[in-house]
Amino acid sequence: MADTQVQTMTGAEALVSTLADHGVTACFANPGTSEMHLVTALDHEPRIKSVLCLFEGVATGAADGHARVTGNPAMTLLHLGAGYMNGGANIHNAKRAWTPMINVIGDHAVPHLRYDAPLTSNILGLAGPNSNWIKSADKVADAGELAAEAWEASFGPVSGPVSLLLPADTAWNEGGKPGKTRARPSLRKPDAARIEDAARKLKDAKKPVILINGTALTKEGLAQGARLKAAGLRVITDTFFPRQARGAGTFIPDRMQYFAEGAIADLEGADLMLVAGTQVPVAFFSYPGKPSVLVPEGCEPYIIGGPETDSAAVLGALADAIGAKDAAGFAELDIPGQPTGDLNAMTVGMALARQMPEGTFVSDDGVSNGLPCFLMTQKAQPHDWMMLTGGAIGQGMPLALGAAVAAPDRKVLCISGDGAGMYTNQALWSMSRENANVVNVVFVNHSYRILNIELARTGAGNPGPTAKSMLELGEPEIDWVKLAEAQGVEAQDAFTAEEFDAALERAFAADGPQLIAAHVPAR
Amino acid sequence: MADTQVQTMTGAEALVSTLADHGVTACFANPGTSEMHLVTALDHEPRIKSVLCLFEGVATGAADGHARVTGNPAMTLLHLGAGYMNGGANIHNAKRAWTPMINVIGDHAVPHLRYDAPLTSNILGLAGPNSNWIKSADKVADAGELAAEAWEASFGPVSGPVSLLLPADTAWNEGGKPGKTRARPSLRKPDAARIEDAARKLKDAKKPVILINGTALTKEGLAQGARLKAAGLRVITDTFFPRQARGAGTFIPDRMQYFAEGAIADLEGADLMLVAGTQVPVAFFSYPGKPSVLVPEGCEPYIIGGPETDSAAVLGALADAIGAKDAAGFAELDIPGQPTGDLNAMTVGMALARQMPEGTFVSDDGVSNGLPCFLMTQKAQPHDWMMLTGGAIGQGMPLALGAAVAAPDRKVLCISGDGAGMYTNQALWSMSRENANVVNVVFVNHSYRILNIELARTGAGNPGPTAKSMLELGEPEIDWVKLAEAQGVEAQDAFTAEEFDAALERAFAADGPQLIAAHVPAR
Repeated sequence: MADTQVQTMTGAEALVSTLADHGVTACFANPGTSEMHLVTALDHEPRIKSVLCLFEGVATGAADGHARVTGNPAMTLLHLGAGYMNGGANIHNAKRAWTPMINVIGDHAVPHLRYDAPLTSNILGLAGPNSNWIKSADKVADAGELAAEAWEASFGPVSGPVSLLLPADTAWNEGGKPGKTRARPSLRKPDAARIEDAARKLKDAKKPVILINGTALTKEGLAQGARLKAAGLRVITDTFFPRQARGAGTFIPDRMQYFAEGAIADLEGADLMLVAGTQVPVAFFSYPGKPSVLVPEGCEPYIIGGPETDSAAVLGALADAIGAKDAAGFAELDIPGQPTGDLNAMTVGMALARQMPEGTFVSDDGVSNGLPCFLMTQKAQPHDWMMLTGGAIGQGMPLALGAAVAAPDRKVLCISGDGAGMYTNQALWSMSRENANVVNVVFVNHSYRILNIELARTGAGNPGPTAKSMLELGEPEIDWVKLAEAQGVEAQDAFTAEEFDAALERAFAADGPQLIAAHVPAR
Repeated sequence: MADTQVQTMTGAEALVSTLADHGVTACFANPGTSEMHLVTALDHEPRIKSVLCLFEGVATGAADGHARVTGNPAMTLLHLGAGYMNGGANIHNAKRAWTPMINVIGDHAVPHLRYDAPLTSNILGLAGPNSNWIKSADKVADAGELAAEAWEASFGPVSGPVSLLLPADTAWNEGGKPGKTRARPSLRKPDAARIEDAARKLKDAKKPVILINGTALTKEGLAQGARLKAAGLRVITDTFFPRQARGAGTFIPDRMQYFAEGAIADLEGADLMLVAGTQVPVAFFSYPGKPSVLVPEGCEPYIIGGPETDSAAVLGALADAIGAKDAAGFAELDIPGQPTGDLNAMTVGMALARQMPEGTFVSDDGVSNGLPCFLMTQKAQPHDWMMLTGGAIGQGMPLALGAAVAAPDRKVLCISGDGAGMYTNQALWSMSRENANVVNVVFVNHSYRILNIELARTGAGNPGPTAKSMLELGEPEIDWVKLAEAQGVEAQDAFTAEEFDAALERAFAADGPQLIAAHVPAR
């Protein structure tokens, strides 16, 4: 960039152009008054596409989806502490997916902060817990450099969301300078001593498993898993993961069960649990008298590398160390016939397996209906499956939006529960605005069905009328077709398997976003 | 409560019954697995009405509205840190309205916390900044006592939201005990020395004003303001306030202008600014070269009592101290004729003044269209006006829901911008479920109109296509009638003043929630 330009840069321009210099290509934004100069700066930065979101939770979920597809962080624009909190649940989810993300939070001008104006809040306090790095660019000369630092910090050592506060006066003042260009940090390489240890432990183990996540779930990583499988090792993924390559030609690992008692029963007899690209598995929730750690008695957990590690390389190195020659467990293409009769998660899954085109990105916020869809599609055309890793529902549609913006020539399939979908239904509007190629499937059972299951499991007693009514969404029933059409998205209802299959075929053939309300039973 | 019952209480039951003992009558909830025992406890507690909300920002905004109407805190049920953040923006707003509120946040069981399960977060960190009091009931024996402490703390010294974390094992374990009953803390009485000081200063002042908020905005407080007005003191409210009595028979104070330059010009020449029930006024935002503090040069601010004070009593004591005999400035009923022609904020305001029945509660999230409605209704039937005090849009509909649950025999009018309304549109569903008597008026201008104004004011330059598109909501246009109908709320469009007036008459005559999409120009 020429010196003459540098000399007339605002802080907002320095921030935006520095992020563009580092390869940031998308900004998911819900701006307010304190971000007006950032909006103008984005106006002058053709390398970054700005996407307006009508709620900050859509912006942060979309940034997550964009990063899972591209491997690079996207930026968000959030309006002070309140805007950060609106985006907070999907930032939590992104942190649990190890997704790099740069949340740019506009703040009051520094001299204005001490007056405690109505929108003032302790942003460093609010945003600190879920930020892997957080700083405020209180001086215009620092804005560019801190943007570069934020970008670098989003990669780790464990990648995740970072927060950069930009006070309004820093944004509008001249004197900004581009930050020094950073090299992209790499994932940690496999640790030779640990690989050797693991190989030695494997020799003595009778029933070993390896728990994987991260790059091990790429097609290449899974191919290394297939070598371990052929050598007698059970390969199992975390219950929830940021992204997994699946379908024809891809190795099919097992998946850790959600409920603690199921997971422990499934792992019974295992005497060694190697861990690559994740942590020792724990139950999502605690229940009276049930275990927290999902490692059976008599099984030794051994971490070869955590989420900071290139787990695909770990699998390859381990397979080499044990001299694995063969590979086994790849999916062969197996497309089911047309589903008929009742519409439920199984028949929906069959239709998905039939209709999903090659290269589809799946955003799964399907809650109690997600697992059957997952199982039914494992031999479909090659595709990628993205999960809700942090448990805060309302991620599905935003994540799908971001994925579609990142990969406009691919199809995105979003599966959501009706309870989950309502959280961030404003994502539909941005899908329409961007003509995003998202096929939204909403499981309409008029119920927080997962909570009806959990109510029994927690031993919270027989639900009375109040408790029951707190888990039911049927009064009034939500009309998803109208909700989608209200926001510019074409939509249709499906009540039978045949109707759903036909609707899905039409939806995948269409240009731009579509929604199908899949009416499934609540129990 | 009999001893036998006490001995078999869970922590969740102790918490819920203790809050009920203290007069809490409503719980706005979005529960998850960690709150299942709270849901069961609420099931057994007939003194507390549970209202399901499909997004936590609806729950917290509704709790705010309920408290503004009743004067007592409502409780919310939020699901761990992510649920708190989803409700966080309206908690911020409640803090800025000095609204007592008890946010009950379910957390993981204490022994499960150390395993860092997917939904784990640092809740004390996230929720601390906007909580006037925050504790975690880590032991079942403490749950009831901490509930009583939380209730008491919500009243102050400055009232506001408090957070009580309830770990799942505390909730499910037996051994809960009701908390010791607290007396309700009172607002601070007027400080005699300060009243005397203020009266003395008034004698020397040529152009004194008094800035008021809090109980001074009740009908009784304003009647004291009328005495000060008759004695030559200009009485002016904060720009935004939690609640103001208005309409026929009520004193009409002036209102501080929103934009700093307007406010300073309006106050020009004032040499003394007394402050009662609030703080020294500051600009909402800072702008290049414009003042932060809204006190003109040469004017002395003097705080008689802050938001912890009974400002109605302050006004009365001050009026007595200066020997005010008369009172002036009360509104006489003045209902405008039928508006005709173009639909805009003025003609909408005329229709509101005509159609609002006596006793209406108004929830104002109207952003750039709010002020004309406010001005046009000052001589309407007696009513109460509730404002967005914290600047985080998306409060209007949730606040209206809570007000309607609190006052089922009154009408609630909610005015929202279309941008603001989208944030928490899920409130419509709960309005339908509760058959809440809310008339929602959405100003549909397909624009974040306020930001188009702010863009110019901040000097952020001529907006290019990206900047412009970030402030426009017209592609696609949101169909508010469908959005409301999708959630069970009857709705209609209005394009002219006549249509709006007729639609409003029908809406106020109907039972249950209604929505009118008021199509107004963007500029």
